[in-house]
Amino acid sequence: MIRTLAVTIHNEFIENEDIAVLLADQTIKWFWADFRDPSTQEASRLETDFAFHPLAVEDCFHSMQRPKYDHYEDFEFFVMHSLQKDTFAKKEVDIFSGRNYVVTFHLSASPEIDAIWEKARTSADFRQNGTYYIIYSIIDKIVDEYFPPLYQMEDRLNEIEEKDADKTYRDLIDEVFDIRGDLLQLRRTIVPMRDLLYRLLDLRLDLITEHKAYYRDVYDHLLKQTELIQSNREMTSDMRDNYQTINSNRMNEIMMTLTIVSTIFIPLTFIAGLYGMNFTNMPELTADNGYFITLAVMAVMAGVLLLLFKWKGWFNIFK
Amino acid sequence: MIRTLAVTIHNEFIENEDIAVLLADQTIKWFWADFRDPSTQEASRLETDFAFHPLAVEDCFHSMQRPKYDHYEDFEFFVMHSLQKDTFAKKEVDIFSGRNYVVTFHLSASPEIDAIWEKARTSADFRQNGTYYIIYSIIDKIVDEYFPPLYQMEDRLNEIEEKDADKTYRDLIDEVFDIRGDLLQLRRTIVPMRDLLYRLLDLRLDLITEHKAYYRDVYDHLLKQTELIQSNREMTSDMRDNYQTINSNRMNEIMMTLTIVSTIFIPLTFIAGLYGMNFTNMPELTADNGYFITLAVMAVMAGVLLLLFKWKGWFNIFK
Amino acid sequence: MIRTLAVTIHNEFIENEDIAVLLADQTIKWFWADFRDPSTQEASRLETDFAFHPLAVEDCFHSMQRPKYDHYEDFEFFVMHSLQKDTFAKKEVDIFSGRNYVVTFHLSASPEIDAIWEKARTSADFRQNGTYYIIYSIIDKIVDEYFPPLYQMEDRLNEIEEKDADKTYRDLIDEVFDIRGDLLQLRRTIVPMRDLLYRLLDLRLDLITEHKAYYRDVYDHLLKQTELIQSNREMTSDMRDNYQTINSNRMNEIMMTLTIVSTIFIPLTFIAGLYGMNFTNMPELTADNGYFITLAVMAVMAGVLLLLFKWKGWFNIFK
Amino acid sequence: MIRTLAVTIHNEFIENEDIAVLLADQTIKWFWADFRDPSTQEASRLETDFAFHPLAVEDCFHSMQRPKYDHYEDFEFFVMHSLQKDTFAKKEVDIFSGRNYVVTFHLSASPEIDAIWEKARTSADFRQNGTYYIIYSIIDKIVDEYFPPLYQMEDRLNEIEEKDADKTYRDLIDEVFDIRGDLLQLRRTIVPMRDLLYRLLDLRLDLITEHKAYYRDVYDHLLKQTELIQSNREMTSDMRDNYQTINSNRMNEIMMTLTIVSTIFIPLTFIAGLYGMNFTNMPELTADNGYFITLAVMAVMAGVLLLLFKWKGWFNIFK
Amino acid sequence: MIRTLAVTIHNEFIENEDIAVLLADQTIKWFWADFRDPSTQEASRLETDFAFHPLAVEDCFHSMQRPKYDHYEDFEFFVMHSLQKDTFAKKEVDIFSGRNYVVTFHLSASPEIDAIWEKARTSADFRQNGTYYIIYSIIDKIVDEYFPPLYQMEDRLNEIEEKDADKTYRDLIDEVFDIRGDLLQLRRTIVPMRDLLYRLLDLRLDLITEHKAYYRDVYDHLLKQTELIQSNREMTSDMRDNYQTINSNRMNEIMMTLTIVSTIFIPLTFIAGLYGMNFTNMPELTADNGYFITLAVMAVMAGVLLLLFKWKGWFNIFK
Ligand SMILES: [Mg+2]
Ligand SMILES: [Mg+2]
Ligand SMILES: [Mg+2]
Ligand SMILES: [Mg+2]
Ligand SMILES: [Mg+2]
Ligand SMILES: [Mg+2]
Ligand SMILES: [Mg+2]
Ligand SMILES: [Mg+2]
Ligand SMILES: [Mg+2]
Ligand SMILES: [Mg+2]
Ligand SMILES: [Mg+2]
Ligand SMILES: [Mg+2]
Ligand SMILES: [Mg+2]
Ligand SMILES: [Mg+2]
Ligand SMILES: [Mg+2]
Ligand SMILES: [Mg+2]
Ligand SMILES: [Mg+2]
Ligand SMILES: [Mg+2]
Ligand SMILES: [Mg+2]
Ligand SMILES: [Mg+2]
Ligand SMILES: [Mg+2]
Ligand SMILES: [Mg+2]
Ligand SMILES: [Mg+2]
Ligand SMILES: [Mg+2]
Ligand SMILES: [Mg+2]
Ligand SMILES: [Mg+2]
Ligand SMILES: [Mg+2]
Ligand SMILES: [Mg+2]
Ligand SMILES: [Mg+2]
Ligand SMILES: [Mg+2]
Ligand SMILES: [Mg+2]
Repeated sequence: MIRTLAVTIHNEFIENEDIAVLLADQTIKWFWADFRDPSTQEASRLETDFAFHPLAVEDCFHSMQRPKYDHYEDFEFFVMHSLQKDTFAKKEVDIFSGRNYVVTFHLSASPEIDAIWEKARTSADFRQNGTYYIIYSIIDKIVDEYFPPLYQMEDRLNEIEEKDADKTYRDLIDEVFDIRGDLLQLRRTIVPMRDLLYRLLDLRLDLITEHKAYYRDVYDHLLKQTELIQSNREMTSDMRDNYQTINSNRMNEIMMTLTIVSTIFIPLTFIAGLYGMNFTNMPELTADNGYFITLAVMAVMAGVLLLLFKWKGWFNIFK
Repeated sequence: MIRTLAVTIHNEFIENEDIAVLLADQTIKWFWADFRDPSTQEASRLETDFAFHPLAVEDCFHSMQRPKYDHYEDFEFFVMHSLQKDTFAKKEVDIFSGRNYVVTFHLSASPEIDAIWEKARTSADFRQNGTYYIIYSIIDKIVDEYFPPLYQMEDRLNEIEEKDADKTYRDLIDEVFDIRGDLLQLRRTIVPMRDLLYRLLDLRLDLITEHKAYYRDVYDHLLKQTELIQSNREMTSDMRDNYQTINSNRMNEIMMTLTIVSTIFIPLTFIAGLYGMNFTNMPELTADNGYFITLAVMAVMAGVLLLLFKWKGWFNIFK
Repeated sequence: MIRTLAVTIHNEFIENEDIAVLLADQTIKWFWADFRDPSTQEASRLETDFAFHPLAVEDCFHSMQRPKYDHYEDFEFFVMHSLQKDTFAKKEVDIFSGRNYVVTFHLSASPEIDAIWEKARTSADFRQNGTYYIIYSIIDKIVDEYFPPLYQMEDRLNEIEEKDADKTYRDLIDEVFDIRGDLLQLRRTIVPMRDLLYRLLDLRLDLITEHKAYYRDVYDHLLKQTELIQSNREMTSDMRDNYQTINSNRMNEIMMTLTIVSTIFIPLTFIAGLYGMNFTNMPELTADNGYFITLAVMAVMAGVLLLLFKWKGWFNIFK
Repeated sequence: MIRTLAVTIHNEFIENEDIAVLLADQTIKWFWADFRDPSTQEASRLETDFAFHPLAVEDCFHSMQRPKYDHYEDFEFFVMHSLQKDTFAKKEVDIFSGRNYVVTFHLSASPEIDAIWEKARTSADFRQNGTYYIIYSIIDKIVDEYFPPLYQMEDRLNEIEEKDADKTYRDLIDEVFDIRGDLLQLRRTIVPMRDLLYRLLDLRLDLITEHKAYYRDVYDHLLKQTELIQSNREMTSDMRDNYQTINSNRMNEIMMTLTIVSTIFIPLTFIAGLYGMNFTNMPELTADNGYFITLAVMAVMAGVLLLLFKWKGWFNIFK
Repeated sequence: MIRTLAVTIHNEFIENEDIAVLLADQTIKWFWADFRDPSTQEASRLETDFAFHPLAVEDCFHSMQRPKYDHYEDFEFFVMHSLQKDTFAKKEVDIFSGRNYVVTFHLSASPEIDAIWEKARTSADFRQNGTYYIIYSIIDKIVDEYFPPLYQMEDRLNEIEEKDADKTYRDLIDEVFDIRGDLLQLRRTIVPMRDLLYRLLDLRLDLITEHKAYYRDVYDHLLKQTELIQSNREMTSDMRDNYQTINSNRMNEIMMTLTIVSTIFIPLTFIAGLYGMNFTNMPELTADNGYFITLAVMAVMAGVLLLLFKWKGWFNIFK
């Protein structure tokens, strides 16, 4: 589907006029053509009517290019990734920016494009400011949608840090690794987007100061998002190390318990076993207080071992 | 609340004159307007009286921008983070710097602003030096307040290194991770502040040498703070690795104890159990010195195992 | 074997004409000479006919140079690595680019060269565009062949993440390490290729805009491949850490089971052993309810220990 | 204390003339004023006589600035750290370099300054070369003193690698971590010193080639020191990882010993316990060869388990 | 020992003429003086005859400078490290390059210098090309000698990866750490050598294109060597992590075996111990089928525990 929106030099709106007409009409101040999941015939107009470079057109159909900004002889070309609400799945949105027109291209419905389209149809600002302002609005909308998943991840990390009692240790650590993976995914979108904005601010020297401020504002957001990703990834690696340490500490505690109990009782049990033997000639057995001496020896052994463990500081760990 | 402070070309102070009057008055050398938690109507004067760019005004109200420095056509805009004493919570302070005025904006009381306001009201230095010196003083004050938390963290780390006997191992390692997290938080404020100063020194070529020295001095402090954060984070990761190694070493010691005791007594206990069996036909039991031969065999077995452990160097670990 | 393909100024194709003839003929617009596993005598024509620099010729025969781009006085020299389908083994392809010719050099058959050769023989595009377009086509083909191994590795990693039940833990972790090693190998080809393209775009200022677009498109692919390698390597290190954590967690669970069972039964077994001793004078044994009191004491001991473990939270781990 | 050393245009030395006189005297080629732990009144001459910028003077009194190099309108300012022999404690040395004078400032005695002072008083080289040569000599001396602690650390690391038999494992690893910490401390001095020299070589374009060679020589030393720190830190982290691996390997060996012994004897002991039960009706007990059959069964069980362990490769670890 | 080799403007060789003569003779096109372990008197000629800067001369005698390239007013100075065959010990080779001469300086015999000396005495190439070609040949020779140790290390790593069955696990990991250390050592030579070549290519703009190609070829080799070191170090760290994981996995397997055996038999042994007690009043003992009921209870307990372990998946680990 192709839809168009044009503004004449008399500041009048024209909707859904054909592209060829708009390109030829000298009274058109600017126009915006939006290609949504175009038929093969519709798509061919990118080359026949606009004469866009085949490499740029090819990029529209290849799935999941990385975000980028290309400067061709008589148009500019943007590949961007928008994030779908809720699922945070990536979707590609491509923009061609020419002398007096903007062409947007996407293979499925894009809520960001729809929102800006509605604004552009009704707002005097857009009528006045022209194509650069449409592009800014789309990029700004797309980048704003990166914040919700980022903040959601940060919230989940903070929740995990407060060690939710209903969840097991294993679930928590699984969630930390899951968030780490999602941050990695998100970084693959946000870092190239940041570089795109940087190059745009660096190369388009012809942007008037007024316009630069708008693009710089988006760049600021991307900078902040990159920092959020970076510091959240460092936070997850700190959490993983912390868990690892807690785990190894708990292991020490467990093994110490086992060792203390075993080391005390194993020799005692041996002695008990010794006097449970059925040899006919065992003088100790018939001694009158043999049993009581044996009990005393056992008590002394246990006491000495306990003192030894105390002296080695093995009980401190339970503090 | 809005308060103002102005100096006339005759070097006289005027306090709390209205902004519109100050902007129109040709005899005003410079003035400072401070917006503290302004009402909607007061805030609107940023756009109506000063005609600041909507993006800059918007940034004042968005909570927690990252620190930044923007150059607009006829004013400069700073977003800065101050740290609250004691809690070290972040608070945003925004500054607009125009031809002959400074506007500061903050949503709650700022001790840093108050301190500089008092100085500016009374000091001849400020009267002479004008707006750039006010801005420098505020930034300097804000950055100086970054040192106490940093030094506090460094002190805590040094205390931990001396292994406070009253605290358990687990508490110490928890504190190390807590400080690591706080250093990460602080870095999110200090690194953008450092970049802000760098850009300011880089871009404002019109700053006279005299003024550059002041801003460079603040930049130096931020450089040192960044280095402190970095080396303290490396210190915490060294401490964590050290603890991990101590822990695993202690584990070895524990398991060795258990293994030595078990490996010696388990076979002996088995032999004792063997001769505790109640079979009617067990020739050894009725042998006259069966018991004593068994004891001797047990002693030899224990001795051989002890020598074996000694030979494998398992006792060295207790040195 | 040497084969040649030439286009005259009248846009006619000439195949397998001798190199010396082509170099001398003024009516040749451009020609392409392909050396495949040349005999010593054939190879010598690189120096005798084309007069290429000895260092460049030497590089053709040294096995496995790293990919690079050298600018000599009257020709350019490329060393590139192609990946063999299925085995992903590296193969070197060298290209010399002169005034009106391209020379390709490879020690074994190259499917990439063959594919472009076929296209060049038949396509009007090549006839028109000349040598730069042949070089672009070869590089593009080679770089496109880097994607299949990369995507294959990414697929294997995703499969592993879904924890295939038929494979043991140990096999999975082995595969993760194997993929890590393969990514490292691949990076040794792709990063120098990326740098090659970057230098080419940076240095050959004489490339017309039209041509730059083609090379930039290949550069984009290499950028994306580098990012894929980087993020996949980070993914493998996350997986390794995750496994490490799961492992240590499972270890805790195992040891806790052992410790609980041992700590409860070892003292009980000792008591049983105690009353299994054969001393003649053991008053408890002949007490009427000695056995029942002993059983009761044992039950109380086990109960107390279980409560203690519960209070220390050792059962939580099984949740 | 302030001391001065001046050289006249007639190449004569004048010692301990007053600063004010030296500054006014047109026949002074250059002079050096050394402030050591100055009284408040002496220190004030930095501002009254030399008119140094207040920020630079302030930096003299603030303890432990990071090393830096500032260019003021009519003087240059250096902050440097010298290392005390034996203790390797840091001490700040500040240098002001003006038109025809050098001012050094330090809060306690500096052996480096004293050594250069003696040379300057007696050497014709200094008389000839003037202030830049004094500054070079001081920096060179200070930087040379960084080598002894670095080499000492490297020696200690090499000693540790040869695994001194008199020390326990735990002591060795403690020393490794201690050296790691010291390298971190040293890096906080050496890296800013390196950057100082770099900026000096970069900015002072007016330095004649002859002089550049001297400063570049110091820069070389700092480069080498930075590399030493970096590679020694990597060496310590390799040692730590090595120890960690040895430790975990030893743990495996220990646990394998325990498991083999336990797994063989625990079932045997159970069987022995079984026939130690006192049930009146246990047919096996009265069987004539019950005892011998039981012994045979036990031997078979032990043999099978040993073969199983061998098959699983558990004995290989002892190789 | 000093030896010289000169070429006159008539392309004639002169050997072992005195340096002073060669420097004065206008008919000398170029000459090469080689200082091998010179006597003090011979060494002094560096300053008296050639008038080299004292800092450069000093660097010849200081042991083990890092490789570097210095540009003095009328000569260039190189410090390089050659690796001794077999031992791979470092040896310093210094080169001075002046208007029409090369001076090489080394404290012991250098096979690299000897090889080039022989070539220079006999080859027409050297006669033609002069000093720059001698320097190139020496650097090329030195850098070529870096490959054998690198390839040897890579081979050893590949051997280790194939897990040589004759070596124990512990020996293998020791070798990995040893290679890691050696790579670190080698990097300390190769990285500064790479930077040396980079600076040379960057600074000596006067090098004609022809000569640049030669030096760039050496630079290529150093680039490849740096990459080899880097990727081999990453390979060792992957191997270490892999071993660590295998180790911890094996540990799990061991402990699981111990825990299963213990958890099943410890309670059974307790029951056996219970009925081995010698209380006179134990009703179960005299029950006719007490023994058989006890055996049945034991069998049921063991079966339940086995099912529990199976349900918890503890047997999977043995797959
Ligand atoms: Mg493309
Ligand atoms: Mg990508
Ligand atoms: Mg992508
Ligand atoms: Mg926005
Ligand atoms: Mg997820
Ligand atoms: Mg995931
Ligand atoms: Mg904003
Ligand atoms: Mg931030
Ligand atoms: Mg922030
Ligand atoms: Mg300050
Ligand atoms: Mg905290
Ligand atoms: Mg925290
Ligand atoms: Mg510092
Ligand atoms: Mg670890
Ligand atoms: Mg080569
Ligand atoms: Mg390669
Ligand atoms: Mg392609
Ligand atoms: Mg593989
Ligand atoms: Mg592999
Ligand atoms: Mg200061
Ligand atoms: Mg410092
Ligand atoms: Mg020195
Ligand atoms: Mg120390
Ligand atoms: Mg320390
Ligand atoms: Mg070095
Ligand atoms: Mg030197
Ligand atoms: Mg060295
Ligand atoms: Mg070579
Ligand atoms: Mg070695
Ligand atoms: Mg070694
Ligand atoms: Mg390579």
